[in-house]
Order: sequence, then structure tokens, then C-alpha cells
Amino acid sequence: MSAFYPQYTGVFAAILERVKGQRVAIIGHARPDGDCIGSQVSLARGLAARGVDVVCINGDPVPRRLQYLVAGMTFLRTDAEIAPHLDRLVIFVDCADQARVGERLKLKFPKVLACVDHHLSNVGFAEFNLVDPASAATCEMLAGMLLDAGVPVDTAAAKALYAGIMTDTGQFRFQSTSQRCFLLAGELVARGASPAEAGHELYERESHGRFKLLQRFLASMRFECGGRVCVGFLPLGIFDETGTTSEDTEGLVDYARSVDGVEVGVLIEDKSDGGVKASLRGKDPVWRLDRIAAEFNGGGHACAAGLTCAEGVEKFYPRLIAALGRQLDAGRSGPAN
Amino acid sequence: MSAFYPQYTGVFAAILERVKGQRVAIIGHARPDGDCIGSQVSLARGLAARGVDVVCINGDPVPRRLQYLVAGMTFLRTDAEIAPHLDRLVIFVDCADQARVGERLKLKFPKVLACVDHHLSNVGFAEFNLVDPASAATCEMLAGMLLDAGVPVDTAAAKALYAGIMTDTGQFRFQSTSQRCFLLAGELVARGASPAEAGHELYERESHGRFKLLQRFLASMRFECGGRVCVGFLPLGIFDETGTTSEDTEGLVDYARSVDGVEVGVLIEDKSDGGVKASLRGKDPVWRLDRIAAEFNGGGHACAAGLTCAEGVEKFYPRLIAALGRQLDAGRSGPAN
Repeated sequence: MSAFYPQYTGVFAAILERVKGQRVAIIGHARPDGDCIGSQVSLARGLAARGVDVVCINGDPVPRRLQYLVAGMTFLRTDAEIAPHLDRLVIFVDCADQARVGERLKLKFPKVLACVDHHLSNVGFAEFNLVDPASAATCEMLAGMLLDAGVPVDTAAAKALYAGIMTDTGQFRFQSTSQRCFLLAGELVARGASPAEAGHELYERESHGRFKLLQRFLASMRFECGGRVCVGFLPLGIFDETGTTSEDTEGLVDYARSVDGVEVGVLIEDKSDGGVKASLRGKDPVWRLDRIAAEFNGGGHACAAGLTCAEGVEKFYPRLIAALGRQLDAGRSGPAN
Repeated sequence: MSAFYPQYTGVFAAILERVKGQRVAIIGHARPDGDCIGSQVSLARGLAARGVDVVCINGDPVPRRLQYLVAGMTFLRTDAEIAPHLDRLVIFVDCADQARVGERLKLKFPKVLACVDHHLSNVGFAEFNLVDPASAATCEMLAGMLLDAGVPVDTAAAKALYAGIMTDTGQFRFQSTSQRCFLLAGELVARGASPAEAGHELYERESHGRFKLLQRFLASMRFECGGRVCVGFLPLGIFDETGTTSEDTEGLVDYARSVDGVEVGVLIEDKSDGGVKASLRGKDPVWRLDRIAAEFNGGGHACAAGLTCAEGVEKFYPRLIAALGRQLDAGRSGPAN
């Protein structure tokens, strides 16, 4: 088998050499997702199998949906837990910069050995920076590099890597889903990853509360800009009412985007301070939703952007629709592109 | 590269030999899905590239969502269209028996050369029967066999095969999703299939009517059997009201199944004759939903079964819930398993 990441063969070998016999911490970002936890679990297991003393550190808890990946692993979170580990050699995964680990963990670790990441915005803050924006997931990179280097990928590591690739490719649907993603997914299945288990754990365990949230969100939907924009609303109090939190809104906006003819899906959430939070999702990167969000001091990517606004929904909503309308009217060859 | 389907190398070569210089018809099943259309398109293109005169025949139209796969292809449907082609050498794809092509096409073709299919229930009605229930999709089989045999797989064929694998694996989530599925998906991407395009065409073009149907279905949901069964209802008149047809109900029942703690999702549709139609979907094959359906003269698989019942919903519903409750109470080691 030829190498998945020939460009990293040398540097990954150098990192493996440097961590030999060391105490290592693998740090992920705040509000960890499947790619973050998958990266931490697989790298930690691979290093542990080679005799490295390794712990995982996160500023936020491992989400319920990802708990099936971390059995038997050491994840540290509180100051008291982390305090004895500040002198460890640190590898960041899936973090574009150190601020991504969250306020609480920021800059506390002096020995930053490496960063493995696939975000274009990565600032290159570590000694070794393995950053490949052409990869769909950090787990894709780690799966490839671990296999290339012959580091053990056991069943638990294969499941973790699979979860990261599955979630960060939007279930093998984003444009970033390459032949390499599929070849690696196949290798992981051969090592014990189960597509059915991952599908069940990650996508078929909607809480009752989250389900009510979906019902309410769908019932609230409005079409704007001649059917090219679909907006759903989460009014104040809905989280208490449905027993959910803001985290449970993940993926709702994709329903707004999924309707035929809709170019942009929007979720607008009332905030307790009287303002709103909005998520924008586009079908085509030709629409620069990051620029729309920037008009409200938000940001993001062309197809996925977000913002918070101090104005209430009554004032904010017409401004947002007007901004979207201007860009959609300008068209593919217009000034907004 | 080693062969994907070494067991079929000989028989597939024999079929290719037999169709040389012949007029061939590739027939799919009634209400064609992605795997059926994908199989027809890819096999037709492969044979045409080798100089075979080939047409595709279906009893029902190619669904709107799959239209992006059939540009430039000849699909025949009406009696007048089909009449001149009854003497063609026929290859059935994705059909467990000839009845699956629908009432109108049944038994009209005397020269049945081959059948390529992955259904366990295939009755082996052709001269050459390539039937592999271990495959997730007929498109998986055809992708493997076409590549193994060196038959051209152009971009359009790659897209068609990819659509079949994607839909019949439930977006790479069913238990049937093997390493081979992923390796083949990767090969197809390398030949021009686009995961993002397929995701968009197949899953992000919900019609407005279908969207209203989803809203109504979700709003109707009830939990039974201590939260282990979730049921949604489509009352009489809802199709007219939302501008949809019974075909638009595809996938709705998966929402009922996706809630945490739910073992069985159910969709119940009122029929104009006063009876009901029900779809049952389970998370685990330990629940034999085919047996539940059989109590009402229905059938299917362990995890996916269906039935129609002459009784109205008032009488049918308590009977169904009682039957489900008996099986769930009996448990994994109980008599119903």
C-alpha cells in the first residue's frame, strides 16, 4: 500500500521520536466535536501502545453522543485535574490556534510540540505544524499518518477515527470528501470501526428534548427572497420548555437549507440579553455567507457562517433578509462574489 | 489491484461474451430507487461503450431526484415504446423476481439472459443469476464487476453507481456497509462521482410539499411502549393538502426511529378505502418486525417491514401497539426472537 500522507512521513516520524519516553498531553478544542475527540482518542491510543505516558485534555466535557468513543481513556478537564500536567509535552489536534481550546486552558502549557489540524486558518503556533486544509478531517490526517507510520490502530482507535471522518464530512457528503476519505474509512472498517454503530450513536440518539426542538423549529419556518432563503426561529424560553440547551441546535439549520430551491438556510435564536444569534448555511460557496455575517460583526466560511447581534429579532430580521437579498440578486457574477 | 468480486469473474465474462453484437434491454423494478437506476445506467453505459445496442426499461418513471443520473440515456416505459424491444436479450438488475418489475411489464420478455441482484429473496429466474446478499447494493456488485472486467466506467456511470451505493447503504450507515463499499466509493470518486453533488441531488432537494409533510408527520408523533416505540401519522387528505404523493413518505419513518430510547419507528398512513398502510423500522435486527407485519399479512425484513390493513386506524392502532409491546416485552432472549 502506498502512503496516504507521504508529505508528512518525515515530520510524523520526528514527532514519534520526540515523544519516546516522555509525558504527553493531547489537547483538543472547546465544545469538542467528533473530529476533535476522535483525533485525541486515536493519537492517545497509538502513542500509549508505543509506551508513551499520555493524557487527553479538554476545556469542555466529552458530549453525550461521543461517550461511546472514550471508554477507558483519561480525559482531564478541571483545573485540579490539569494542574499536575502543565509540564507535559503537548500535541494540539483540530485547533487552528491556542485560543480554540477555550479561555480556561489558554496558554498554560509551555512545551507545545506539535499541532495536527485541517483548518485553513491555522496560525502555525507549534514547533511541528501538520496542517492540511485539503483534508476533510483531522481524523483523516491522523488515520493516514498512523497507518503510514505503522503505529497500532486498534478497534477503539479505528472507531474514533471513523467517527471523526464521518462527522466532519457530513456523513461523506461535503465537497471535501475525497477518494482518500473513502479508502481510509474502508481501512478503519477493516480494523473494527462499525458504520452502523457510528450512525446509531451519532445520528440516531436524538434526545426527546432535541426532538421537540426540531418539531418547533420546523413549524416556525418561513421562506424569503422568492423561496431562496428559508429561516427557522428559536424563541426565548424554548430551551427551558424542551429541556435542551443551545448545543442541541446543532444541525437544525441544515433542515432549512435542505428544501428544493433554497440557497441559504438560516437559524435565528433569541438571546436572553434581548439580542439574537444567527447561523447561516449555504448550498454553494458562490454565496459568501461569511461576508453577510461580517456585516453584523460575525464571520465564518462561505457556506457556513454565524453572528450575534445586540438588536432584537424585529430589527435584525429585515436587515438580514435585505443583506441576503442583495447578494442573491447580484447573482453569481455580481459584485458580492 | 485485486478483484472486488473474484467469484463472478467467470460468469460476468460469459455474460459480456453473450451480449456482444446483440440488442439488449436492462430492466429494473417498479418504483425505481437509486440502486435500480444506478445499476441500469452504469451497466447500459458500460455495454454501450463496448458496442452493444442497449436500452433501459422500467414500469414506472425515473423519479425527479434521480433525473440527474439519466441524461442522454434511453429509458422506455409505455407499451408503445416497449413493443419493438420484446425480443431483446434481457438483463434484470436489482429485481428479486420478475414480479418486481411491476404488473405491466411482467413476463413479456422471453430471452432472460441474466439477473444481477443483492436481495436474499432472489428466486434465480434468469439463465445467469449473480445474486450476492452480502453486498449492500446491486450498484456495489456492478461497480466491482465492471472494474474487475475492465469495462469502461465513465463519469456518468461512476455517478450512477455512487448514487446506488449511497442510497442503499443509507448514506454509508447500514450494517451492510463494508470495507468493499468504501473502496468502491473511493474508486468511483476517482472516476468523477461527486459526494457533494450526490448529497445535494438526493438529500437536499426536498420539495416544499414534502417539507410540509415532514412538519405534519413530526407534529403528529406519539410515544408508546414506555418510549421504545415512536409513531407518526399521515391522515387522509394530507397528500392533497401538501401537494405530495405516497412516494414522498420515503424516509419519514426514519425520523420516528431516530429518537434516543426508541427501538421501533412507525408510520401509519390512512388509505382512501378506509384502511391503513403502516411502515415499521427497527434499530436492531433482534426485533423481528417482519413477524409483526406478518400478523397483519405484511412482510419485509427484520429491521424494515410493511403492511396494509383493511381496518381503520382506531381498530388497527391498539392491535399494532399490543403486538409490538409483546415482542419488546419478550426481550432479546424471549420467544419472539
